[in-house]
Amino acid sequence: MVSEIISIGDEILIGQIVNTNAVFIAKELNKIGIEVEQITSISDNKEKIVKCLDHAKKRVNIIIITGGLGPTNDDLTKHTLCSYFDDVLIKNEKVLSHIEDMFLKYVPTPINDKNREQALLPSKAKILKNKHGTASGMWFEKDDVVFISLPGVPFEMKEIIVNEVIPVLKKKFIRTNILHKTILTYGLGESVIAERIETWENNLPEDIKLAYLPNLGRVRLRLSSKGDDEKKLNDDINNQIEKLYPLIGEIIVGLEDQTSIEEQLLNFFKKNNKTLSLAESCTGGQVASRITDIPGSSIYFKGGIVPYNSKIKNQILNIPMELINKFSVVSEQVAKRMAIEVRKMFNSDISLAITGTAGPSKGESKASIGIVFIAIASEKRVFSEEFNFGNHRERVRERAANKAFELLYNEIINLGIVDT
Amino acid sequence: MVSEIISIGDEILIGQIVNTNAVFIAKELNKIGIEVEQITSISDNKEKIVKCLDHAKKRVNIIIITGGLGPTNDDLTKHTLCSYFDDVLIKNEKVLSHIEDMFLKYVPTPINDKNREQALLPSKAKILKNKHGTASGMWFEKDDVVFISLPGVPFEMKEIIVNEVIPVLKKKFIRTNILHKTILTYGLGESVIAERIETWENNLPEDIKLAYLPNLGRVRLRLSSKGDDEKKLNDDINNQIEKLYPLIGEIIVGLEDQTSIEEQLLNFFKKNNKTLSLAESCTGGQVASRITDIPGSSIYFKGGIVPYNSKIKNQILNIPMELINKFSVVSEQVAKRMAIEVRKMFNSDISLAITGTAGPSKGESKASIGIVFIAIASEKRVFSEEFNFGNHRERVRERAANKAFELLYNEIINLGIVDT
Repeated sequence: MVSEIISIGDEILIGQIVNTNAVFIAKELNKIGIEVEQITSISDNKEKIVKCLDHAKKRVNIIIITGGLGPTNDDLTKHTLCSYFDDVLIKNEKVLSHIEDMFLKYVPTPINDKNREQALLPSKAKILKNKHGTASGMWFEKDDVVFISLPGVPFEMKEIIVNEVIPVLKKKFIRTNILHKTILTYGLGESVIAERIETWENNLPEDIKLAYLPNLGRVRLRLSSKGDDEKKLNDDINNQIEKLYPLIGEIIVGLEDQTSIEEQLLNFFKKNNKTLSLAESCTGGQVASRITDIPGSSIYFKGGIVPYNSKIKNQILNIPMELINKFSVVSEQVAKRMAIEVRKMFNSDISLAITGTAGPSKGESKASIGIVFIAIASEKRVFSEEFNFGNHRERVRERAANKAFELLYNEIINLGIVDT
Repeated sequence: MVSEIISIGDEILIGQIVNTNAVFIAKELNKIGIEVEQITSISDNKEKIVKCLDHAKKRVNIIIITGGLGPTNDDLTKHTLCSYFDDVLIKNEKVLSHIEDMFLKYVPTPINDKNREQALLPSKAKILKNKHGTASGMWFEKDDVVFISLPGVPFEMKEIIVNEVIPVLKKKFIRTNILHKTILTYGLGESVIAERIETWENNLPEDIKLAYLPNLGRVRLRLSSKGDDEKKLNDDINNQIEKLYPLIGEIIVGLEDQTSIEEQLLNFFKKNNKTLSLAESCTGGQVASRITDIPGSSIYFKGGIVPYNSKIKNQILNIPMELINKFSVVSEQVAKRMAIEVRKMFNSDISLAITGTAGPSKGESKASIGIVFIAIASEKRVFSEEFNFGNHRERVRERAANKAFELLYNEIINLGIVDT
């Protein structure tokens, strides 16, 4: 069972938006054993849409199309599909009353004709309810190929995929199992890992594929396999993962698809009734934002402070100006003091502090661009580590955030602050 | 002059990563008048790569390939291209010494053979220097088609595109001009905007294309045109934009591609010597993180606090418990008081505070999920506004952050706090 995802929208081809929809859909299809053979992005253009559908239907059994279902004139997908399937638009009363209801509840402006036209839908399509928006999904079938058209707004599309598309695909098709397990590692580069696990890699069975996914201080190792016996797949991959621990166990954070490092931290802190606070300078709230992305994080995350200049570090976080002047605001001494003070201020069990120079200019510090100190304070100890994350603002900030998660994770486990 | 972007990597097809590389490349190509006809993602598989190249070279003049150039065994692009162009690998001494140099500077572990092998490169390719990494770019030409292969690591690829690829493409090809201008609006839905500008839209000249890009409280309107006379293109589009102001002027924040709302805020605050502080509860540092993404933001952003529970709001931000108990932590009164207190604490000219219920559970507040209060305090006034951002954590947080930027932008302009 193979599929193709077609993303329609000039905004993708001119680089105005990132195609996150394809990612989500690919993931969901993989979960139920439907492989994605190709992802294709094309523009809002009738002829190109038709040509792309004609090609795809020769290659695959399932085509999922996103985009072009909005109420404005630049949205062509509904009309193109309607003529592609020789169909006509008819008013769908159920969809209309849903649209009217949404406007009453969430939109301060009154409903207009363009919104109401969203209830005109092709007669041959099975309509897929869009709980969060006004553009319905559509399901067509022709010559044994399924064509599914979905809105381009991500959270609308996601809800339809999960609740309306996947359950039906599962029933309709006999599928194999595709299994991916991704081991999340923090702290070593991909080539060093490859060297360490070389013999293991060379002895992997034919049907298990290994991929390295390096990304700013993290490397993910993905093992993939497919087959009909789900249990065997799972056992085979788990066996291989077990063999990795003696080789690189100390850098393995866990299995990614089950739990990100942010989720694992939440679990550990929660289980052990510990709390966390943050003082972020160069990362400017990025660590806090990632922590609070996870539902339930308020149970352990007491909060954070972003003291974005030296004066504020002094006034609000009580970092002595003499310390800043003596060692520079980007220094081990200041990082440690930030951790100590924020821990006191928020009365948390553990605290993490980051100070660094993200660039492109040096700001108030004497440190070179890319130098970052990360400190952690707990009842056990206060420590700080220095890093050079190179000369690239975005990268420095993201690597610093990743490294902060890694250090925090290791610290609470290695010092026995939490019981995993 | 048309191009195709081919992204190689199983991780894209199984939905493990977002293809941000294609976005960046598409944008850069558009800027120099090279249209992107299609973006195709395929897996790390020799036959599929070859088939995809064969198809693409019939359609376009320029093919840009990303991914598959790493040092590990799952990376196949270099070897595939080498055989596709009937070539052999030879050691490039310059690249080798660059790799050795990088290891000395940034990598704590010693260099190994896999890293050194990155200096083995196809003899027929022009080598494109990768300043930030060990995988060089490669430029091949065959049958009047240019094939460019670049590493998949985003910041490495970006640097090569900007410094090694674009300048050469500009010299090599006669190109037309493609012009996109995107008007950024905050506050009205796309269908209401479409209604308001209907006559204007219907009277747009044939060669100017309009697109609506709605996204969580923002709508971007993109005008696109192409032609040989750059000045005329620019004038024509600017004329149309001028005509939009009488129709929807009050919701227009500016032109997006020149300056995001974050950059505009930096400019306004900087020009007027004003400062900002933040108290973010439900957005958890997201606003601070977006502000500090912009280089130079430390000139106006004094910092922020993320008081993630009521006790912390009370202890650190001095919000009286009576106020929280009386009105609930998600209320106009608490939002206003947070803004007042954080402004005092950081001694900033303007402050912004956000408190809301992002879900999925209600937490400490009595407010329904999706209810968010955003408050702004300045010497002129303190005000708060209430929003219902629906029932979806990620969306609530992002819409709240977007709305915060919109309110802040309008407040400082409308009250004359800054002189634009």
